[in-house]
Amino acid sequence: MNLADLVLGRPLATEDEKAERIGPTKGIPIFGLDALSSAAYGPEAALTLLIPLGMAGVAYIWPISISIVVLLAIVYMSYRQTIEAYPQGGGSYTVASENLGVWPGLLAAASLMVDYVLTAAVGISAGVGALVSAVPALQQHTLAICLGILAVLTLINLRGARETGGAFLIPTYVFILCMLGMIIVGVFKAIASGGHPVPVVAPPKLMQATAGVGAWLLLRAFASGCTAMTGVEAVSNGVMAFKEPTFKYARLTLTIIIGVLMVMLLGIAYLVRTYNIAATVPGATGYQSVLSQLFAAVSGKGAFYWTSIVSILVVLSLSANTAFADFPRLSRAIALNGFLPHALTLRGRRLVFAEGVYALAILTGLLLTIFGGVTDRLIPLYAVGAFMAFTLSQAGMVAHWKRVGGRGARRNMFLNGLGAIATGITLAVVLIAKFTEGAWITVVLIPSMIFMMSSVKRHYGTVAKQTDTNTPVNTQDLCAPIVLIPVDRWSVVSEKALRFAWGLGAQIQILHVECGEETESLCRNWARLVETPAKEAKLPIPELVLLKSPFRFVVKPIVEYILNFENENSDKHIAVVLPELMERQWYHLLLHNHRSSALKTLLYFQGSQRISVINVPWYLG
Amino acid sequence: MNLADLVLGRPLATEDEKAERIGPTKGIPIFGLDALSSAAYGPEAALTLLIPLGMAGVAYIWPISISIVVLLAIVYMSYRQTIEAYPQGGGSYTVASENLGVWPGLLAAASLMVDYVLTAAVGISAGVGALVSAVPALQQHTLAICLGILAVLTLINLRGARETGGAFLIPTYVFILCMLGMIIVGVFKAIASGGHPVPVVAPPKLMQATAGVGAWLLLRAFASGCTAMTGVEAVSNGVMAFKEPTFKYARLTLTIIIGVLMVMLLGIAYLVRTYNIAATVPGATGYQSVLSQLFAAVSGKGAFYWTSIVSILVVLSLSANTAFADFPRLSRAIALNGFLPHALTLRGRRLVFAEGVYALAILTGLLLTIFGGVTDRLIPLYAVGAFMAFTLSQAGMVAHWKRVGGRGARRNMFLNGLGAIATGITLAVVLIAKFTEGAWITVVLIPSMIFMMSSVKRHYGTVAKQTDTNTPVNTQDLCAPIVLIPVDRWSVVSEKALRFAWGLGAQIQILHVECGEETESLCRNWARLVETPAKEAKLPIPELVLLKSPFRFVVKPIVEYILNFENENSDKHIAVVLPELMERQWYHLLLHNHRSSALKTLLYFQGSQRISVINVPWYLG
Repeated sequence: MNLADLVLGRPLATEDEKAERIGPTKGIPIFGLDALSSAAYGPEAALTLLIPLGMAGVAYIWPISISIVVLLAIVYMSYRQTIEAYPQGGGSYTVASENLGVWPGLLAAASLMVDYVLTAAVGISAGVGALVSAVPALQQHTLAICLGILAVLTLINLRGARETGGAFLIPTYVFILCMLGMIIVGVFKAIASGGHPVPVVAPPKLMQATAGVGAWLLLRAFASGCTAMTGVEAVSNGVMAFKEPTFKYARLTLTIIIGVLMVMLLGIAYLVRTYNIAATVPGATGYQSVLSQLFAAVSGKGAFYWTSIVSILVVLSLSANTAFADFPRLSRAIALNGFLPHALTLRGRRLVFAEGVYALAILTGLLLTIFGGVTDRLIPLYAVGAFMAFTLSQAGMVAHWKRVGGRGARRNMFLNGLGAIATGITLAVVLIAKFTEGAWITVVLIPSMIFMMSSVKRHYGTVAKQTDTNTPVNTQDLCAPIVLIPVDRWSVVSEKALRFAWGLGAQIQILHVECGEETESLCRNWARLVETPAKEAKLPIPELVLLKSPFRFVVKPIVEYILNFENENSDKHIAVVLPELMERQWYHLLLHNHRSSALKTLLYFQGSQRISVINVPWYLG
Repeated sequence: MNLADLVLGRPLATEDEKAERIGPTKGIPIFGLDALSSAAYGPEAALTLLIPLGMAGVAYIWPISISIVVLLAIVYMSYRQTIEAYPQGGGSYTVASENLGVWPGLLAAASLMVDYVLTAAVGISAGVGALVSAVPALQQHTLAICLGILAVLTLINLRGARETGGAFLIPTYVFILCMLGMIIVGVFKAIASGGHPVPVVAPPKLMQATAGVGAWLLLRAFASGCTAMTGVEAVSNGVMAFKEPTFKYARLTLTIIIGVLMVMLLGIAYLVRTYNIAATVPGATGYQSVLSQLFAAVSGKGAFYWTSIVSILVVLSLSANTAFADFPRLSRAIALNGFLPHALTLRGRRLVFAEGVYALAILTGLLLTIFGGVTDRLIPLYAVGAFMAFTLSQAGMVAHWKRVGGRGARRNMFLNGLGAIATGITLAVVLIAKFTEGAWITVVLIPSMIFMMSSVKRHYGTVAKQTDTNTPVNTQDLCAPIVLIPVDRWSVVSEKALRFAWGLGAQIQILHVECGEETESLCRNWARLVETPAKEAKLPIPELVLLKSPFRFVVKPIVEYILNFENENSDKHIAVVLPELMERQWYHLLLHNHRSSALKTLLYFQGSQRISVINVPWYLG
């Protein structure tokens, strides 16, 4: 067992693929963590905007939550149908590109990729944010801890889906049970007390209203609350990860996730209104999260409270994993169409799309580093991508129904059209409300990514056009190359190269850069060492070419000679034979010059079709 | 003019070498900065140890300084003779290895290298220390500023000696003029006032004596004061940098440097005693350096005071440059004897030994990073190397006189023997007094370096033994290799590789790793694409070898096949022909797999004498 096996797990054979597939029990933690954990910040985000309304604001959370749940239901219906229509895994990208065309597809692809990277970054930074507010001494190491968690997540995901599900199973279910338990107890207490329950721990006093209600404020609160919807598209991208029958298990998983999320959102909204709990100002003294107030009011600050708070923190920081589960599958789908590097389509040693995991890890690490691992700076970039993808996906489903037709198509078109309009409006509101705070970055980023992806596609097209062939091999005009051998001194290494060269062609030149003593010795002995034996054996006699180098450069004059020689012999092929002393110990590499490496690199970038490079190695015993 | 020309200067031809040589005017800043700037911390270091003696301590600075000046005179005599005996540049390393043998030579070499790296690190950190104590806001960036200055010094030194001298000319001479001016004025005032001058700005009151005088304390004060002697060996290493007649100009330069240093040391000692100036406790409130007190007492805190203080700071931080002037020449001398990599003997584009400059920069950067750029942590490591080198150098000169004999040899032997004993005792004192504070690091480091250098020598010996030859080329047993071509699909790239292979040998195998569709297509079309045309053209028919890969690895099965094939055909040579798609744009490299690079790397480390690798490139148009 080597190191790679230990760290990444032993390689899995391609035929083991089926065994790696999952059911709903593991599907919920893997694909649902992002969506479910949204319940922890969505309602709070809406309530924060309602603070200026005081007591009246708390009442508005009910209609806002109802609207979000209705929107969620519409989006759910859409993705439910998408899963069935695209059992090979079809998120917004597939739906948009198949039904709306290449460019809308790329728009969805870029939006989703941005969104996944942000999901990973926000999830990690939110978790670490909670940790450092509990242990302030760690504050200065925020970024380092973020990157450490990122590394652990990357490793877990490189090991594959089965392990991933296992690692996240317990925290997710603890979180769900705590939330649902609190809601059931709270609702029961509220009904038993005739709608006026007495909080176990009283929430902070509501602030006085400082502003009147207005449509723009409510719209912004609704838009902020919509962050509760991020992550619901995950299942539709990952249908392939489920066991047979894939689409049924995927749909079941989606239904449970959305159902639980709806119950959470409605339960929180109902209890917040009943217990009169408002958001407190984030960052100000006395700040307490809405969920913390709610748990304390319903059950007091006992073991249940602390279990719940810890599970929320854990789930928030693990929600980043949804991005790891989904980004590689999405980028594979895009790469299969030629818009991203082919490498993203290959399964790694553990059957996961390892390059996608690496890509996500690098991009997330970059984002965390640029923004210092601070959630508040990342949030304004978030949700734009998600709602762009929702809108395109549902617009795509409208086109799908129009094309497919049949029973119920009209009803479905209406539902998806409504959803597209609703999410489209939300997207516009989010963009406008958050533009100057950072959403503009997304607006710049997404078109650049689309440009990049179309360039990749064009490049692959060019390569295919230039290299593809279906004609038999051309057996005409085979001719021996002219052989050039750079040599610094006469040694067994150069002797071996010369012997190899005699097998290649009839015209051989030995290139030597003048450098004092060694040059003299080479010239003096040339006849004895090479010319005479060659003549006697009736082999082609190599020509010794001396190159001047006033500036003591060695590689440059050789490369210049080779390129010049190639120009003057435009009908010939040239084989550069490099006698190379090989070191098996890396630290011995420091002791020798790396001219043959430099020569190879320069010839790589400046060379042409007619120059081949031949390494003739000589290993030290 | 390209970027390298702009940053490093245009390349200088080998024949321009003479023009780069210098005289005393530039020799003093280049080789004397380290020695001269020692006057700024040597007396202070001695006085600091004398603080507990109060008023009585200040008086002891006079005999201590006299002893140091006498020691300096002895060392000067020794190096003066060394310069004449070794006009090609012979510092302690050359003298010790030629007169005492290989191992003492290596001991001197290791000591000097450690000392130069410390000179560079201490010089930079002392300068930056002065800067950050003037501008405390920069404190947190200490290391970054240190590394920045290191980068600038590296660049200046890569441009060559002429520019180096120019950059350091003015600060050095301003420093010398200020020091000598202050001493002349001070001595004049002292004599005019009958030995009791009135200070312009009174120095802080002397502290009460807290301890009685003892031999050990005076010995330690002497040892600390001896740091004033670091850097005097620089000229003898750099004789080659002077213009003809080199040894005369070098000796003149050394004489001026030592003379000025002696005047400074004696002047400071005399004035300190006359003005009753003691050291203050470093790091405590009210700390003021001895030189600052002295300048203020003699001339007041006017323009002259501030000019002098700034010139001291600049010269301290620039003294690092002595290491840059000398380390490359020392490492060249060691490398010429085969104890360090050959690359250190080569002149770069500007005729300096560029690799030595890089090596010093890397080691200094490492040291600064490990010690956080803090001078106090570096100081205890310092001076051990210098005194080890002094001792070995003078012991070597004793052996030299004994061997050479002639007139005056007896007197010289006595002088050098006395010097060797004096510096040897100082070395022992420094080692014991500073052992636990950090000198132990030097004690560990120097033997490891000696071991490393002897390993390098041994390695070069092995290589020479295995590769050197003076016999004519063997023209017997030339045989065509078996050609192996890894191919993923049939394309113009693989076609070109196959055509090249037909020129190489009669037995050709095409290696293909099974991967679904492409394998099927290749097998189905093999006869039409390759076999039939080869048969018709009467060329060797390539054999298609399919390699299984259950774990989807591509490179591994190919390498395993090649190594296995080599084992089974122990009498044949093998040529691996790699069809390679070449990208001229680096960012396109992301879009293609790098299997041929991986294959080359693995074959490099696992291959054998009988495997040659041939790149057949195919460039995109």
